[in-house]
Amino acid sequence: MSKGVTKQSEDFSRWYTDVIQKAELADYSPVKGCMVIRPYGYAIWERLQQTLDTMFKETGHENAYFPLFIPQSYLEKEAEHVEGFAPETAVVTQGGGKELDEPLVIRPTSETIIWAMYKNWISSYRDLPLLINQWANVVRWEMRTRLFLRTTEFLWQEGHTAHATFDEAEEEARQMLDIYRRTAEDFMAIPVLTGSKSEREKFAGAVHTYTIEAMMGDKKALQAGTSHNLGQNFAKAFDVQFQNEENELEYVYATSWGVSTRLVGALIMAHGDDQGLVLPPKLAPHQVVIVPIWRNEDQKSDVMNAVQSLATELKEQNIRVHVDQRETVTPGFKFNDWEMKGVPLRAEIGPRDVENNAAVIIQRLGGEKSTVTLGSAGPAVTSLLDTVQETMYDRAMQFRTEHTLQTRDYEELRKYIDDDGGFVLAPWSGNADTEDHIKEETKATLRCIPFEGPDITENEQDIVSGEPAKYWAYFARAY
Amino acid sequence: MSKGVTKQSEDFSRWYTDVIQKAELADYSPVKGCMVIRPYGYAIWERLQQTLDTMFKETGHENAYFPLFIPQSYLEKEAEHVEGFAPETAVVTQGGGKELDEPLVIRPTSETIIWAMYKNWISSYRDLPLLINQWANVVRWEMRTRLFLRTTEFLWQEGHTAHATFDEAEEEARQMLDIYRRTAEDFMAIPVLTGSKSEREKFAGAVHTYTIEAMMGDKKALQAGTSHNLGQNFAKAFDVQFQNEENELEYVYATSWGVSTRLVGALIMAHGDDQGLVLPPKLAPHQVVIVPIWRNEDQKSDVMNAVQSLATELKEQNIRVHVDQRETVTPGFKFNDWEMKGVPLRAEIGPRDVENNAAVIIQRLGGEKSTVTLGSAGPAVTSLLDTVQETMYDRAMQFRTEHTLQTRDYEELRKYIDDDGGFVLAPWSGNADTEDHIKEETKATLRCIPFEGPDITENEQDIVSGEPAKYWAYFARAY
Repeated sequence: MSKGVTKQSEDFSRWYTDVIQKAELADYSPVKGCMVIRPYGYAIWERLQQTLDTMFKETGHENAYFPLFIPQSYLEKEAEHVEGFAPETAVVTQGGGKELDEPLVIRPTSETIIWAMYKNWISSYRDLPLLINQWANVVRWEMRTRLFLRTTEFLWQEGHTAHATFDEAEEEARQMLDIYRRTAEDFMAIPVLTGSKSEREKFAGAVHTYTIEAMMGDKKALQAGTSHNLGQNFAKAFDVQFQNEENELEYVYATSWGVSTRLVGALIMAHGDDQGLVLPPKLAPHQVVIVPIWRNEDQKSDVMNAVQSLATELKEQNIRVHVDQRETVTPGFKFNDWEMKGVPLRAEIGPRDVENNAAVIIQRLGGEKSTVTLGSAGPAVTSLLDTVQETMYDRAMQFRTEHTLQTRDYEELRKYIDDDGGFVLAPWSGNADTEDHIKEETKATLRCIPFEGPDITENEQDIVSGEPAKYWAYFARAY
Repeated sequence: MSKGVTKQSEDFSRWYTDVIQKAELADYSPVKGCMVIRPYGYAIWERLQQTLDTMFKETGHENAYFPLFIPQSYLEKEAEHVEGFAPETAVVTQGGGKELDEPLVIRPTSETIIWAMYKNWISSYRDLPLLINQWANVVRWEMRTRLFLRTTEFLWQEGHTAHATFDEAEEEARQMLDIYRRTAEDFMAIPVLTGSKSEREKFAGAVHTYTIEAMMGDKKALQAGTSHNLGQNFAKAFDVQFQNEENELEYVYATSWGVSTRLVGALIMAHGDDQGLVLPPKLAPHQVVIVPIWRNEDQKSDVMNAVQSLATELKEQNIRVHVDQRETVTPGFKFNDWEMKGVPLRAEIGPRDVENNAAVIIQRLGGEKSTVTLGSAGPAVTSLLDTVQETMYDRAMQFRTEHTLQTRDYEELRKYIDDDGGFVLAPWSGNADTEDHIKEETKATLRCIPFEGPDITENEQDIVSGEPAKYWAYFARAY
């Protein structure tokens, strides 16, 4: 620990992996491309899980579990889907010491196995909607991996719903995207763009893909969650029909939606600084760490009494507090350690603080110090945590605003992406040639057609081709 | 639904799978031996997870996540371990369209990959103890599978801890077994025997294996959870040494412990009856289901008002209540449906109940009816739920007592296992030949040497060989 990390300005990518290692979030595994999520990193994921799971259940979804293994033939039933996923599958060919008759694909996503089951469960409009989510591991054989952002195996949730009408599926897909937006903005303190993916960027097998896109500390975009209206594509591939209220047979409408452990990577890169991780209070495993400071046994007992009473007081306010009682390291070491781990507030109590019946609170972000009175610290610390949460969001929003350009001029777009590296909002015809051209020259891709962008006027022209423009779209380099 | 299930007395095994299907707990998957856990079954698993996870955290454990894939060579490092698990592995030989250089085994359990990581994380006594748990899926290629009890893929938790001394590891292994015992007895309402496994039955790679053994409704035993003191076996296989307080290098001591979705099978088989599932209140997804009864719209509005106020009242007492508002099925259908699903209490409110300002409560177990007054129903229902929880435990305990025989006579053992099918407690020398003999003649195996069995006296003789006996041990046919 304590030795510090590569500076962001020097090498953002090395800074990122340094922070992950030093904050003990994750580690490389012996199998290439796979990661070990260490307890501190997993505790952040658990908080994200709880946040999401609560919102899923509030909107009527239930959890279930579908098998890891998918018969290879299933993956091939939906034409676009297999094209998108087959090249990156891991395949089991042996089981119990024997060659298998049909190879089994390890799920890269579960549409196919789930719709094979839905065929048995859905026969009438009375069975709809079917609102199911699963928390699971999935495997996609990736060539270039990066801890949390792109790993061969990752953890995620995947929602798979079935509906009686296209409109209801559309509403569901949009509702779930909004839950992802709220998770990002209200909990992760990361503002996100919400919008549609282009034909080129959408999910293999979807009619519409919706996305939340976040700006990282190096100004690159990160796709942080997606929600798909799958229309009747999977119902047709797996022959899932239902009897509607008019007694007619109809194919079922579907959605799917997911976020993954990639969100932990987003947290690191959106908020971290040269001292390490900076965690938003709502997701921090420890919101406050108390560091006792003493030189001899006499001081120790007074200090520890004050520390315990502060801890009790904060717990009563439902604040997640941790007392760092280690005696094998110095207070200075502890300060660096918890800074690296991004704990929002550090409380210090030494002999003089005991005399003053007070504790010193230091904010991780900005380093501002304040004093709270023991016995009435609870509300003060709660309010400080709220402030930190808001400040983090505002800071991230300001950063994104400062690094976003709206332009109609292609040269300006090219130059901005090269020089600044931020987001560019530009008029687009809807033609994939424009995406190709921009990608080739700048490595930027179309991130989304925003739900809440400027209106497109009649004489607006595509930024590359000059064809009539249909949308304003965001372009950026992305993870 | 509603059509009922095979009677237990007719065919216990068919009764079991019937209940699973009709209560919508699980379904067969297209891949042989794998199961789909449906929302209602998964909700029970989630409650078990929460119960266990809380106790794990209270005892200082943290969650983490290790990779699904284990290099084949790792599995081979601990001699007993590979012998135990290699024959039942699923093996990935292709990834991203190419043959892999080294095949990857899908974890059947994670000792090997975890101890490969612990080597990087442990160097000093200051790093110990390391108390980690993971919630994960594992795969064991099984020939004969049965929903929940034995499936190729299953969900479980596996704890893996590292300690500085053998005694500390021993204490940990016993502590975790006690957490399993409490989960079974206090939450699942299933009394369990706790004790040691014989050499023959212990975990591949363990020094000691401890177990909780439950009696099912057909009197067979179910191993419901195990905890292992692994000694230094895995530390030696993966060369994990630490500097102790005397500055000497020493191999680390280990434990591992796990329970799985098999527990859901245990719940079904321990408590279920010919009407279906019977769930203990502490683990039931719905503790109370309210069924409104009305014939016309006038009645409906009064009844629904009363139903909603009862629901609110119960929620305020933290009772998990569900209002069955379906209008496409009759109240009678609902009664059967919730009986099949084992909901502990059903509340009915019809027009006459509204007049009396009351609701009728029917207990799933025994069918006893009582009346509660609206406005003060909360405490009454809470107390009823407590009573049901206790009654279920007492009933299961009585059943086990009635079907357990202590004997010194081999013929009596043989006859009891054939005729009654229950547990037999018999004196044992410690010699595996006795286990072989009993298994061959009766299909019963040694379930455990109980922690709290009768004392063994000096002149006690092995029930088969007549050799001096060292223990009283339980024998039974098992799942």
